[in-house]
Parts: sequence; structure tokens; C-alpha cells
Amino acid sequence: MKRYKLIVAYDGTNYSGWQLQENAPTIEGVVNEGLSRLLGQPIQVIGASRTDAGVHACGNVAVFDAETTIPGDRIKYALNSLLPPDVRIMDSEEVDDEFHPRFCDTVKTYEYVILNTKDPLPMRRLYTYWYSRPLDVEKMRKAAQQIPGKKDFKSFCAAGAQVKTTIRNVTDVRVRKEGDLITIQVKGEGFLYNMVRIIAGTLIKIGDGSWNPEKMTEIIESKDRTKAGPTAPPQGLTLVKIEYIG
Amino acid sequence: MKRYKLIVAYDGTNYSGWQLQENAPTIEGVVNEGLSRLLGQPIQVIGASRTDAGVHACGNVAVFDAETTIPGDRIKYALNSLLPPDVRIMDSEEVDDEFHPRFCDTVKTYEYVILNTKDPLPMRRLYTYWYSRPLDVEKMRKAAQQIPGKKDFKSFCAAGAQVKTTIRNVTDVRVRKEGDLITIQVKGEGFLYNMVRIIAGTLIKIGDGSWNPEKMTEIIESKDRTKAGPTAPPQGLTLVKIEYIG
Repeated sequence: MKRYKLIVAYDGTNYSGWQLQENAPTIEGVVNEGLSRLLGQPIQVIGASRTDAGVHACGNVAVFDAETTIPGDRIKYALNSLLPPDVRIMDSEEVDDEFHPRFCDTVKTYEYVILNTKDPLPMRRLYTYWYSRPLDVEKMRKAAQQIPGKKDFKSFCAAGAQVKTTIRNVTDVRVRKEGDLITIQVKGEGFLYNMVRIIAGTLIKIGDGSWNPEKMTEIIESKDRTKAGPTAPPQGLTLVKIEYIG
Repeated sequence: MKRYKLIVAYDGTNYSGWQLQENAPTIEGVVNEGLSRLLGQPIQVIGASRTDAGVHACGNVAVFDAETTIPGDRIKYALNSLLPPDVRIMDSEEVDDEFHPRFCDTVKTYEYVILNTKDPLPMRRLYTYWYSRPLDVEKMRKAAQQIPGKKDFKSFCAAGAQVKTTIRNVTDVRVRKEGDLITIQVKGEGFLYNMVRIIAGTLIKIGDGSWNPEKMTEIIESKDRTKAGPTAPPQGLTLVKIEYIG
């Protein structure tokens, strides 16, 4: 048995998220199906990040074990020919059989994109969150700077999520503006359920003037989900990459 | 009766083009339907450009006549609430009843976008043409410079198209590169059927080294469709804007 690692990109629009479900299309489902067809044996991948319905990825990571003579770097091409056009393998390689996509130390990079204009082009609608009221990027930056650190981010965790601890290490939060697009880039060693979308929803509340930038620290310290902003919608979110460290 | 002008943007992915058809979804169809519902009377728009299936627009133009008390600039908001999310009115205004979107002098701007990379992100697939072999932008520019002018562009007209004359005035052709995106911008006072997509297909043949840049003039002078490149696929094309002149 050999272990293979895949870098998986997808347009999440038409999927009920990454994780396998009985009666709904999922990324995990189509990747399993493609691999099983390609290799002629039932394959079950393990994904690094179980992204939600409608969320996109440039670089999710999945591994699987199989008996095959196809070289690791060729699996990408063979598998892409069997996958639907909205799911693509960006890279494939054989890895050590100790490698586990979820239990290794990682830095994940997410981006949340807001289309900040009165008149949104329909070509943007699947990959951005349209917010028509003007957002003050400087205020959003001021607030973003208060986020990084190893902290209890309970305020940014979806209510009802089952986790042992709500402490996470966020290493960087940046806000950039290009034309009418505002991108919130968040890096960290792990995230709580809906965390990046709640951070985005909170930064929007600050950008539109509803709250002061200083409120960010207060929100984090409150450890109270109801103090933070709403969960911004899924189509603005993309899992950009996962770096394995150490 | 008053005449109104609309600027219409759309994601052409799920439509059989602009022009009304019996049993297929079209942009013209959904705009007519929305307006008829909004105004409580059967409305039939006249479009400036009958874009093909899968082609997008930031600024197609349509006019319609109606008896209504809704101010011209408010129609946009009312109509957008009745349209599907992939069609949006960017602007609306009352115009002189002499104004006709097709019989006035115009400069139209089209853009054709090529995704030139070995590993295309699936989020790009609906709005670009993926071409994996490397393209030489300098060669494409050299060839593009030979296009503008009032010329017989029969070589760039889809075979079998019914037109009185194949002479058109192309005012500008530019090629720009941003990351892995190559954009061909074409401006002109009118275009033949499939003309911009055939120009794109020809520039790609030159960019990938199949033909020399100098061949462009030869192709135009041949007045022979079979000498030009293939018709590039529709999803790379966007009608950016239509300017009414004189």
C-alpha cells in the first residue's frame, strides 16, 4: 500500500461542502468516485479541511492509500480527466505513510472576498459577498490587527459546535482592497467552525461604521458568540492553501 | 409612450444567448418577463447586441417603450428585484424616442480572456478560455497591431453569415497580461458574426507559435475564413460596453 497526497481545488457553488453525505453532491464524494474508477478499487480519501457548502478552495489537501503502479505525479492528470470541471487536482504525489492531513501541524490560509459596490456584476456573484454600503478599509485593518495570537476565540465559534477547546493560534489577518473587491486574508494553525466567516462578518460591521475598530478586542475577550458579527455567507470564502510545518 | 434605455449585465453561462427563443432561456426573455411583470403590460425590449450562448456582458444596451409613472432611474432597482441573480440592470434612464440601440453609431468594446496556465483554477472556468500551452504576448501584440482600420474582415466572419457587407471599422486591438490571464480587448464600430472570437482564435495561433505575427495581415487580405484561426469558445468573451457616438 502506498499513500498519496492530493491538492484539490474546487468551485464549491454546486456542492454541499467537502464532507461525504448520502443524498447530496460533495467534493469528497466526487473525488472518491473518480479515484475508485481510476484505480479499479474502492478508495476513500481523508480531507484536511471539511469546508462548508458553497465554500471554495484553491488548495485543500486529501490523502488516500492504494495499490497502484501509477506514479504519484501522474495521478493528477489521470484523475482530472475523470472529475467534473468544477473540481480539479492541482498536484499529486506519493507521501510517507505517516502523513495524515489533519493530525500534522499546519498553517491554513483563507481568504474572504467582499464585493463592495452599489452595482455588482453578476459574474462576481458566485465568488464574492456583495455588500453595497461603503466599507472603510482602514477601520477594518485597525480591527484586524487585534485578532492575531494564541487566544480563546469562542466569540468566533458557531454556537453549538462540539469542540474540546476554543483556543486557536491565528498568525495573521490582513485586509486589502483592489478596485471594488475587499479581501480579508486570515492565516492560522487551525480554525473553529465558521470562524473565518464570523471574523468577516465582524470586520464588515466595523467597516460600515456600526462598531468602532476598538470593539474587536472587547468582542474576543467577551468569549460570547452573540457579541460578534453575523456569519458572512459561504460564497465569499476560499481555502487558499494548507502548509504543513515541522 | 416613453422610451427607456437599460444597461444590462449578465453571466451568459446558463443562457442560450441574448435573443429570444421559444424553448430556451435567453437574456432578452428574462428581461422582457421582468419588465412585463413590473409594469403590468407586455414589454418587448430591443437589444443592441445579440450575444451568443455562453457570452457575458457588463454593458449590453436595451430599450423599450412603456406607459409608466416610474421615473427612468428607478426602473433599475425595481427591475433588479424581479430578475434572476445572473442578470442585472446596471443603469436605467428615459431617452429620446428617436434613440434606437442598433441604428445609432456606436463604439463597442469586447474583451476575450484566456487563462494561460497548466493548472487552471475551477473558479475561472466560466469566464475564461483555458489554454495550457504557453502564449507569447509580445507576438500576439505584434499581430494585434495589424488589425485596426476600416477593412474587409471577411476572414473573421463566421462562414454562412448573412450580411450585406463584411467591411467593418475596428478602432483598437490590445493584448494585456495580468498573472495567468491574457486579455484581448477589441474596440470597433461594429462586428461580424463571431468576429471577436475568431480574432481571439487567430491571436492564440500566433501566440503559441503555430503562425508568425506577420501572418495576420495576410489572413485579413485573403478574405478567406479558412485562413484564420478557429472560433475561440464563448465563455472567454464579454461585451464590456457600448458607447453611443454622434
